[in-house]
Amino acid sequence: MRERIQRLKQELDKRGLNAFLAIRNTRYLTGAAAGKVVIVPVDGAPILICSRLEFDQAKRESWVRDIRAFSSWRAPLRQGERVYFREPWQLVADCLRELGARAVGYDGGRRELMRKLRGAHTASYRELPELVLELRKIKSREEVALLRRSAKIATRGMGCAAELITAGRSELELAAETEYEMRRAGSEGTPFPMIVASGRNSWLPHATATRKKLKRGELVVVDLGATFNGYVSDMTRTFALAPTRKQIKLLQVVKRAQQAALANVRAGAKAKVMDAAARMTIARAGYAQFFPHGSGHGVGLDVHELPSLAPTSNDILSKGMVLTVEPGIYIPKVGGARWEDMILVTREEYKSLTASVLSRICR
Amino acid sequence: MRERIQRLKQELDKRGLNAFLAIRNTRYLTGAAAGKVVIVPVDGAPILICSRLEFDQAKRESWVRDIRAFSSWRAPLRQGERVYFREPWQLVADCLRELGARAVGYDGGRRELMRKLRGAHTASYRELPELVLELRKIKSREEVALLRRSAKIATRGMGCAAELITAGRSELELAAETEYEMRRAGSEGTPFPMIVASGRNSWLPHATATRKKLKRGELVVVDLGATFNGYVSDMTRTFALAPTRKQIKLLQVVKRAQQAALANVRAGAKAKVMDAAARMTIARAGYAQFFPHGSGHGVGLDVHELPSLAPTSNDILSKGMVLTVEPGIYIPKVGGARWEDMILVTREEYKSLTASVLSRICR
Repeated sequence: MRERIQRLKQELDKRGLNAFLAIRNTRYLTGAAAGKVVIVPVDGAPILICSRLEFDQAKRESWVRDIRAFSSWRAPLRQGERVYFREPWQLVADCLRELGARAVGYDGGRRELMRKLRGAHTASYRELPELVLELRKIKSREEVALLRRSAKIATRGMGCAAELITAGRSELELAAETEYEMRRAGSEGTPFPMIVASGRNSWLPHATATRKKLKRGELVVVDLGATFNGYVSDMTRTFALAPTRKQIKLLQVVKRAQQAALANVRAGAKAKVMDAAARMTIARAGYAQFFPHGSGHGVGLDVHELPSLAPTSNDILSKGMVLTVEPGIYIPKVGGARWEDMILVTREEYKSLTASVLSRICR
Repeated sequence: MRERIQRLKQELDKRGLNAFLAIRNTRYLTGAAAGKVVIVPVDGAPILICSRLEFDQAKRESWVRDIRAFSSWRAPLRQGERVYFREPWQLVADCLRELGARAVGYDGGRRELMRKLRGAHTASYRELPELVLELRKIKSREEVALLRRSAKIATRGMGCAAELITAGRSELELAAETEYEMRRAGSEGTPFPMIVASGRNSWLPHATATRKKLKRGELVVVDLGATFNGYVSDMTRTFALAPTRKQIKLLQVVKRAQQAALANVRAGAKAKVMDAAARMTIARAGYAQFFPHGSGHGVGLDVHELPSLAPTSNDILSKGMVLTVEPGIYIPKVGGARWEDMILVTREEYKSLTASVLSRICR
């Protein structure tokens, strides 16, 4: 984690900044789920700012030594407890003054805090939302290990869903059982509402799970994720209950599209080439008009990180990126299908982090 | 829901605004989980802007008729499908131009979109983050019914947790079982990571659930919520395993503090009076220095809404508010305790939405 700070400092130095305020990337930089703002000076140690009620937790979780707690109101303190009776923006202003920071970058969010901060400490402030996100694109070995664990739990959840897919069961029941399985396997929770989308729900890419029961003749899209030490996974399979020929074709095409995208993973290649390959496969099958989203995205502490695998992406693939590859086809009145795996980009090609869970085709 | 739009329009009229862009409050105004921006003109019907992949879902979920989909890239369309090949900010600019909107309010978020929008459509833009949040403070009958259902599921989850609290079981196991129970009872998911904080974790107000096993001599804080039709619940109980006298006192004081706060619920009263009552009870017991947070918060589509029950709050209680009351006491090396219920403020006093689940004291 100290390496991340080091890389960030180099970026600050390049840009002539004295310090950086991280509001959206506190966990990445400090290791703590607790904490509001991290101040990273170009020289010296970072400061983690948190509310009084998170102080003990931040201390336990973070490697950062200089942790400062604020409270918006005066209150009696525990023995030895040190709290600044200040608003967060006042405490940040005090720290910047102490550091003598005149050129300050920040990553966005908390407009109110930034507005008041500008009033309290005169400096040139530059919003650089991409700065830390760019660093986060490439995962360290430790991060890859956590993502691998997270993906393993997701695979286990998908195995559970695959076992349970039966006509008559509700989407909600399926979600309940699967989340339970992942939780017991050590998941800290679902990073996004689990999708179990059957029949008429299957052609809504962002459906969740409803009381609707699965029926024969339906496709069932299951999209789920786990969380391990804050790192999330994302995986999709599509199951078929006594499918029509058209539905089987749909499933085959979406899997082929994923394979086509994967055949184009190569450090140094453009991310959008993967998307183009998937898109071409789907177009050739006559489904171009039914693929309304991009082919994947980076994943880490957030479900959607860089790189983007959309047609408009400018990202270049490189070693150490972890991303999902997820083409989808959604045909109203027929069914929707999506197929998603998580991969690690290596020097040569890639490694899959999610294991193969086949969609059973139940007849 | 049309009433909400009506009230918003009155507020726009008062402020001399032609239109409002809701980015953070789309679900409240349209009923749809799908959708990026809602444009509410002071005269005429609202427009919901969503990405192409969310169009079918938005159409199914929302009462808004004028739904416009964008796609950042050109792509073949389904028969009859209408999509604007524009970036979201371009589509918003087009709509504002069509409406002839010269004075536009917005609720914040999506800085990049707002920055580009300012370049694309000249108008006077006013950031009014509180405008819709103020409307959301008072719940309609329909909203109260949903919150009641959500609170009922949370109570059921808490009952499950109460059954399972035993030395030897892990925090994670307890969370898994409880979430499963709520999911089966119809919860759409946990609105925040469920807290099962035992022993040394119990004095961290924002702990989650770890592999740690419950032990005799520990307090166990369980803080959980369910989601029903988007509306969330929030409830806390503290359990004790073969507690010491000091721990029993702690539990008694925190419950008394909640009662003291509840005795001060009255439409027209200051919210901070409830906090002061809880704080005084805790201070009299000699624990003033161990209560680092406010006494509660409004709850609705989000876990934390207005009003705030902190010492610094300026909110006034009124009929139709739904809020949680949650004093807590955290003593390092002894234990933490928090007691939280959801109430509806009525004309006379209040109704509890969470039912009584007693903490068992296991000896």
